[in-house]
Amino acid sequence: MTLYDTTMPDDKPADGQPAPAGLKPWGETKVVGTRAPRIDAYERVSGAAIYTQDISLPGMLHAAILRCPHPHANVRRMDLSKAKNMPGVRAILTHESPSADLPWFFGDKGPMSKLFDPHCRYEGDEVAAVAADSPHRAWDALKAITVEYEELPFVSEIEEAMKEGAPPVHEGGNRGRVRTSERGDIAKGFAEADVVLEETYRTSCELHTPMETHASVAQWDGSRLTVWDSTQGVFDVQKTLAQYFGLPSSSVRVIGHYMGGGFGSKLELGKYTVITALLARDTALPVKICLSREETFLCVGNRPANIMQLKAGVKNDGTISALHLVNVGSGGAYPAGSGVGYLVQDLYLCRNVKVEETNVFINAGTARAMRAPGFPQCAWALEQMMDALASKIGMDPVEFRLKNVPAYSQTRNNTPFTTTGLKECLTEGARVFGWKEAKATIRREGTIRRGVGVAAGMWGWEGSTVSTAIVKLFADGSANLNIGASDIGTGTKTVMAMVVAEELGVPLERIQVENADTATTSFAPSSGGSQTVVANSPAVRKAAVEVRTRLLELAAEELKCTVADLSLNDGAIQTLTAPARTVPLHELQSLAQREMLVGVGHRDPHPQGKIPLPFAAQFAEVEVNTRTGETRIVKFVAAHDSGRMMNRLTFENQVFGGIAMGIGFGTSERRILDAGQTGKMVNANWHDYKIPTAVDVPPEHTCISVDPHDTECNNTGTKGLGEPATIPTAAAIANAIFDATGIRVTQAPVTPMQLLALLAGQEKGGRQ
Amino acid sequence: MTLYDTTMPDDKPADGQPAPAGLKPWGETKVVGTRAPRIDAYERVSGAAIYTQDISLPGMLHAAILRCPHPHANVRRMDLSKAKNMPGVRAILTHESPSADLPWFFGDKGPMSKLFDPHCRYEGDEVAAVAADSPHRAWDALKAITVEYEELPFVSEIEEAMKEGAPPVHEGGNRGRVRTSERGDIAKGFAEADVVLEETYRTSCELHTPMETHASVAQWDGSRLTVWDSTQGVFDVQKTLAQYFGLPSSSVRVIGHYMGGGFGSKLELGKYTVITALLARDTALPVKICLSREETFLCVGNRPANIMQLKAGVKNDGTISALHLVNVGSGGAYPAGSGVGYLVQDLYLCRNVKVEETNVFINAGTARAMRAPGFPQCAWALEQMMDALASKIGMDPVEFRLKNVPAYSQTRNNTPFTTTGLKECLTEGARVFGWKEAKATIRREGTIRRGVGVAAGMWGWEGSTVSTAIVKLFADGSANLNIGASDIGTGTKTVMAMVVAEELGVPLERIQVENADTATTSFAPSSGGSQTVVANSPAVRKAAVEVRTRLLELAAEELKCTVADLSLNDGAIQTLTAPARTVPLHELQSLAQREMLVGVGHRDPHPQGKIPLPFAAQFAEVEVNTRTGETRIVKFVAAHDSGRMMNRLTFENQVFGGIAMGIGFGTSERRILDAGQTGKMVNANWHDYKIPTAVDVPPEHTCISVDPHDTECNNTGTKGLGEPATIPTAAAIANAIFDATGIRVTQAPVTPMQLLALLAGQEKGGRQ
Repeated sequence: MTLYDTTMPDDKPADGQPAPAGLKPWGETKVVGTRAPRIDAYERVSGAAIYTQDISLPGMLHAAILRCPHPHANVRRMDLSKAKNMPGVRAILTHESPSADLPWFFGDKGPMSKLFDPHCRYEGDEVAAVAADSPHRAWDALKAITVEYEELPFVSEIEEAMKEGAPPVHEGGNRGRVRTSERGDIAKGFAEADVVLEETYRTSCELHTPMETHASVAQWDGSRLTVWDSTQGVFDVQKTLAQYFGLPSSSVRVIGHYMGGGFGSKLELGKYTVITALLARDTALPVKICLSREETFLCVGNRPANIMQLKAGVKNDGTISALHLVNVGSGGAYPAGSGVGYLVQDLYLCRNVKVEETNVFINAGTARAMRAPGFPQCAWALEQMMDALASKIGMDPVEFRLKNVPAYSQTRNNTPFTTTGLKECLTEGARVFGWKEAKATIRREGTIRRGVGVAAGMWGWEGSTVSTAIVKLFADGSANLNIGASDIGTGTKTVMAMVVAEELGVPLERIQVENADTATTSFAPSSGGSQTVVANSPAVRKAAVEVRTRLLELAAEELKCTVADLSLNDGAIQTLTAPARTVPLHELQSLAQREMLVGVGHRDPHPQGKIPLPFAAQFAEVEVNTRTGETRIVKFVAAHDSGRMMNRLTFENQVFGGIAMGIGFGTSERRILDAGQTGKMVNANWHDYKIPTAVDVPPEHTCISVDPHDTECNNTGTKGLGEPATIPTAAAIANAIFDATGIRVTQAPVTPMQLLALLAGQEKGGRQ
Repeated sequence: MTLYDTTMPDDKPADGQPAPAGLKPWGETKVVGTRAPRIDAYERVSGAAIYTQDISLPGMLHAAILRCPHPHANVRRMDLSKAKNMPGVRAILTHESPSADLPWFFGDKGPMSKLFDPHCRYEGDEVAAVAADSPHRAWDALKAITVEYEELPFVSEIEEAMKEGAPPVHEGGNRGRVRTSERGDIAKGFAEADVVLEETYRTSCELHTPMETHASVAQWDGSRLTVWDSTQGVFDVQKTLAQYFGLPSSSVRVIGHYMGGGFGSKLELGKYTVITALLARDTALPVKICLSREETFLCVGNRPANIMQLKAGVKNDGTISALHLVNVGSGGAYPAGSGVGYLVQDLYLCRNVKVEETNVFINAGTARAMRAPGFPQCAWALEQMMDALASKIGMDPVEFRLKNVPAYSQTRNNTPFTTTGLKECLTEGARVFGWKEAKATIRREGTIRRGVGVAAGMWGWEGSTVSTAIVKLFADGSANLNIGASDIGTGTKTVMAMVVAEELGVPLERIQVENADTATTSFAPSSGGSQTVVANSPAVRKAAVEVRTRLLELAAEELKCTVADLSLNDGAIQTLTAPARTVPLHELQSLAQREMLVGVGHRDPHPQGKIPLPFAAQFAEVEVNTRTGETRIVKFVAAHDSGRMMNRLTFENQVFGGIAMGIGFGTSERRILDAGQTGKMVNANWHDYKIPTAVDVPPEHTCISVDPHDTECNNTGTKGLGEPATIPTAAAIANAIFDATGIRVTQAPVTPMQLLALLAGQEKGGRQ
């Protein structure tokens, strides 16, 4: 991630721009915005949905990967003889296999590793792979492979890795270059401030552990490769696989109909997929791999740990005059990015901002995009700082934030946002939460102390990608929607079907969605970055409108009237003028003669010169048990400006799910490495790595859609929801804990043990 | 089949019409017209191609059908108790199962039967079905079902069925109404004739027995039905299944990627498919059925037997003055059509034509469309009659036909044809064959007698259906073609890919074709009636041109020139003006930014007021062994006007395959029913039912494309090839046998035994 070379936004409101050419935004909607259950709910709950892990092909082999058990080691020698002779073992790949001698790329960093790199830089690095008749035989064969490792000195912690003489993870040292971005003059800003605060905030490494572990099935037909993959983006996997195997894209088919969660960890092609494809080519049989739960903890990515020094200056009137962030983070053993700075630059109007960021290598699993990469960390720092600043100048935290939210469009890099609903998120969220009453009346004494906290957030991905959707109307009035996008569990298929239902008047249960298959659907970007609805719904709407237009033309000709005389509702054409008639679509002769109407919609890129981004404000009420250190969230309100709310149910799913992840990030999740002894991860399982469960989420939570009726972002008025839901959560909880206890917890997660220690310190030192 | 209410065509040439609006016909082509091997050749020969019979799903059950062993019987009682308790048996359906109590339709004839009809009208009628864990357990369970039949009197032969008091196959008797069509005045025509001949020609029932027997796999996900079907048209099966199960089309997915031959027998939904879907619903598991070879002989359709009385009048100058055909045929036990009259009306210009046709029920398997339904039978009669007429008036058979082929466009029902290349087929075929020399010099005496024969034909389906194709160009310059059409073995995928290659300059190996899946492709008509290329290639071309147009626009913008300055060849854009540059598509930034270009093409219906139909003339040289009665075809030339020849290899495949089928029809294939005793078929296997093998096809055969450069039929200039290839073959052979022996064999097939008997008669009675 590179930072924007930001300059100060203009104080004047941006000129109102006309809505982009093309479809007008919806007025009142009939289907969009309602509570529509998932169109594939039956498949999902009955087990009929076929996930990659459910794929079973005739003759299919099963693969397993031998992984380095050490945080840092060289593979000296390997003995495969025993494994090769075990029953059912069909192929073994190591770094010595000619077919597997492939470089491995990390983004645009070039080949920093190999598919099987004999220099293992973290516990979990790939050493060998086996394909066998059954998963158990494959795992047994791994155990029969003898590897002689040369163990190397390792480093597990950011501070240690930065020290002179630390074991180098890569040649060239562990410390990356400092990337700086700046606007205004922070020295001047701090000089103008009445109050300057400085604090170091730390977050822990949060691990990806989606419900469905990562999995692929690969099959070759001659020179054509078909891969079923648990991925967020079939077209991205297709393109990368084509490059790895030197094939045209048309010869690589990637299918990802169902997948059980990705959260960013399935945005990129994984080594396991390439390994599976190689094993399938070598054995001339389909091969399947399903990573184990332990492997997901070790190798599929994480939200990196960050150490964020934040200095902020504020005037007594509440104006933020300067922000200076120095962030050091570790993306693990390979280049993966650990930047967090966007929020500091973008969320509030501040003339003087400087951000300095450094990535540091350690001997641990590599970071990957994780729901709003960088943002929850930055919110942890910024929003606690905002709280502290407000407290210092004696201003209500909501009022203080409102003071710094510009009433006109905020900008990034001098580019204005289409809309910003942050003000509305704060005011409407506070009203529903009962912020002022709670602030005034809450009980902050005794063993069980209550407190309330607020935090704001925004999501900063300005994705501007293309997408094509195809809508087909069958002669019986049912419809098919063809989109390339993966539904990563967020309800994409349902929301897109609602767009078709809205335009075609076809009931949802008569719309079938075909998606995420590079051979049968058209390009859509990977589902991530809160861009799925934003990128695809405008294309779907255009395709549906094309069908609708053609249908009404045909109907007008058949019914001998004009298109203006017709309406399309509930699967029927109605004439608005006398004689009033209702003709069900399946009775329309002109439709029957054409068998099917096909409409294609391409997504408009969003308007030149403006960025559509979502905003949020979240409010938490917590109860801290000062004897046990436990924090219970008793009430939570989330107010979101994500543009139009497409489906009330999936909106709630996203927001509540995002809050749950934010709770995990803020209160329980962290990778624990045995830094002093073995360097190995000690909690690579769901018992010791604590993710929130049903008892950890708030018993009372409300989510609010603050829709600014954005007419410029795209033809459906959507701005994205998945990421912002998880950004402010942890900070809101930390602020509530402060409100309850007077303790500023700068280290995430806030575990009971940490809180007990801080409370004990407070007993000694008196309330802050 | 209903006959056209034909009127006499106008003698004047039709006015030249301008080419239809839209794409201009191709000039010179680079890919189209070449010898391109099948793009899926590897899959087909390696076994990687997945036919319906190859589908294997987890938990899949296997179904088998119990069929009535009698030609006519009532099911009185059934005992399922033993079968039900056999291991692995999961479900049994009979006419008493409520879920299976469904009417069965025959075209527009209404419900003439039931899915399981206790009144069994032919050997092979469905009585019960079993789903079990394995095919063998299913077949074993069938044997354990006890059925008490009331055997009924039966009728196996057309003449018997028409007699007073014959056992009625249906209430209302066996004889259908006579359908008459007429133009001019045949009495007047015969009065004007110098020669009048009358003959009765008979053909036998030819059975469908495609390489892959009929098969289906059905799977339900909730209320959604997925069917893999060995079918010629997935959309037709989808529509009919949706009606049977009361589902929207969008809830029925039919997939037919590969299929091993259909020839018309897989144009319609089969009972076995509905039975399989019912068993899958009842067991909540996927169910597969593969009919046995014996079942294909008994139940999947046939070319009906016909008895054709043909009377023809001709003037001494060669003008045909009158044609009168009285045809009686049997489509078997259910309404299936046995009409043949088209050729008599359409092939030659004759002012006075009358056709009377009657269908008769017998207790035997039902007819279905079979490669050019009705036409080979009619050609058998008409083209032998033409030969006899020519002989009678002392005119060369080729000259005689040329005399009656109008030089201007022939018409049907007063609608002119776009082009007719019959004249060119006759002259060019005769030239290549060396007709005149052969006629003059061939040895017609001795034990091994040689002779030559000619026959003409045309195909009379004026399909005017819609089709939509989608072409996608990936950023690396490879492409995907999405079409709904089934490739029934004719090379459709290859030909369509060639159209894309022609327009986009993408090599064939970089084009992947996705086809025949109602969920992922757009409507195409069932592949049949020689309409596959005609209906789909114009849509494919339009889709490819749309992509090409957009690509050139992007390239012109990027390369700062005009579209006119650019050409597109071999996967690269070339600038025609200085500075000359060649930019491979994968280096085009504007394409990379768009990830994919998508083009959609809808097929234009063919021009109003004209019909595009293909024509053919075939020439055979045979060798008759007068001792054994064997006929050996030593040389064969086929000249075809099918419009543009898209692929020389698939053209030859079609023509040679059609000739092989024509040889089977004319010389060896016939259903033999034990009419006197049991009414059962005695040759329901490949040993006793003789289809031509490699040793039966001509050692030397040539095919010629006579392309009239039809600019009116559609934008690819194609008129269809599959059917005409098989129409004149048998008649050409019969005419050659006559030329060799002087024996007019009016009964098809010409078996050695028949020919020996006729030769014996000739010995007695002297040469005709």
